Amino acid sequence: MSAQTSHSVNKPGGNYLPVIVHNGIAYVSGQLPRRGDELLCIGKVGADVDIALAQKAAAFCADLCLDAIAHTLGGDDKIAQVLKVVGYIASAPGFTQQSQVMNGASDRLVARLGERGQHTRTSVGVAELPRGAPIELEMVVAIHP
Amino acid sequence: MSAQTSHSVNKPGGNYLPVIVHNGIAYVSGQLPRRGDELLCIGKVGADVDIALAQKAAAFCADLCLDAIAHTLGGDDKIAQVLKVVGYIASAPGFTQQSQVMNGASDRLVARLGERGQHTRTSVGVAELPRGAPIELEMVVAIHP
Amino acid sequence: MSAQTSHSVNKPGGNYLPVIVHNGIAYVSGQLPRRGDELLCIGKVGADVDIALAQKAAAFCADLCLDAIAHTLGGDDKIAQVLKVVGYIASAPGFTQQSQVMNGASDRLVARLGERGQHTRTSVGVAELPRGAPIELEMVVAIHP
Repeated sequence: MSAQTSHSVNKPGGNYLPVIVHNGIAYVSGQLPRRGDELLCIGKVGADVDIALAQKAAAFCADLCLDAIAHTLGGDDKIAQVLKVVGYIASAPGFTQQSQVMNGASDRLVARLGERGQHTRTSVGVAELPRGAPIELEMVVAIHP
Repeated sequence: MSAQTSHSVNKPGGNYLPVIVHNGIAYVSGQLPRRGDELLCIGKVGADVDIALAQKAAAFCADLCLDAIAHTLGGDDKIAQVLKVVGYIASAPGFTQQSQVMNGASDRLVARLGERGQHTRTSVGVAELPRGAPIELEMVVAIHP
Repeated sequence: MSAQTSHSVNKPGGNYLPVIVHNGIAYVSGQLPRRGDELLCIGKVGADVDIALAQKAAAFCADLCLDAIAHTLGGDDKIAQVLKVVGYIASAPGFTQQSQVMNGASDRLVARLGERGQHTRTSVGVAELPRGAPIELEMVVAIHP
């Protein structure tokens, strides 16, 4: 087991770790689309943030998740397979295109990792997210021994 | 590891897979209560959809999750134990009976699989779901070697 | 595999188990801040429940998750590492301090278990939770053989 804080990824907003690897599985903390304290965009998708921008934010979150693993383990080569992605989209009333938003993340994972980036996925629309972010992404990833 | 797209289950709404099996664990993508593009029902539970219908939708989602695994692996016999079910219920303001809704899924799992269908569970009420669905279900399932 | 109902933790609100242990991993059902049918507090964080009380509720949920594992396995000693915590916070419109609320849970885990209580985390703000609870917590925990 390794449970290391990576120093070149976003500092967690509390008393927790960005990544824990246990028995060949990496658990990644939920990632907002931010660099340090600056969010790529703020607000509800379908009102403040349009789908195109939300897709960019989703792709950014996907990269942050992979970056957190890569910094912990020493590079993308250690990633065997993305197993599961959960995307929480802060949604304006009546906004039901969470899947389209999440395609931004899914396409990015496959573009970066090829078949190893293929994954299962759950997309839900939530009421509010930390810091007013429009999206939060978490992953479970298989790691090479 | 096997990461196969099953051909007789719902086509995913994006660039992802319905099921991935890794190291004896099946990860299943979030399932809406739909056949193809047709949802069993639409709207918020507690307003547009009553509890009885939402329970049927929950049971339907549970079957879709198991069907996705069965089609990938060749039948229910390969399922060792349902480990975890997360149910997201699109909830009207003030609706707090998410657990009752999810009993529709839990009862179906046990009816179909017996003790192997027993599971841990999380039920939450969300703001919006893809396609306006009233419920979305995901699972983690242990698979026989 | 062991899938036992623990008798001194909260009775699940449906046809499911509080904890399932499979292949060295404990899956814990979502825990509300309740003892029996009595919730520590009710309502939305940011309106009915302030951050300080919500943090206490989060810590209480964290203890309930660990208690459920400890009762199933015979004590905290069997816990190798908390791997992942997901916290769903019932949020008033505009409330975006879900991370601060979840620090109540994170701090409690580390206070109780030391390094074994360090974890990855996802915090989201949801519309409604069962029984009107302000928070629900779930965990994935590595167990000693």
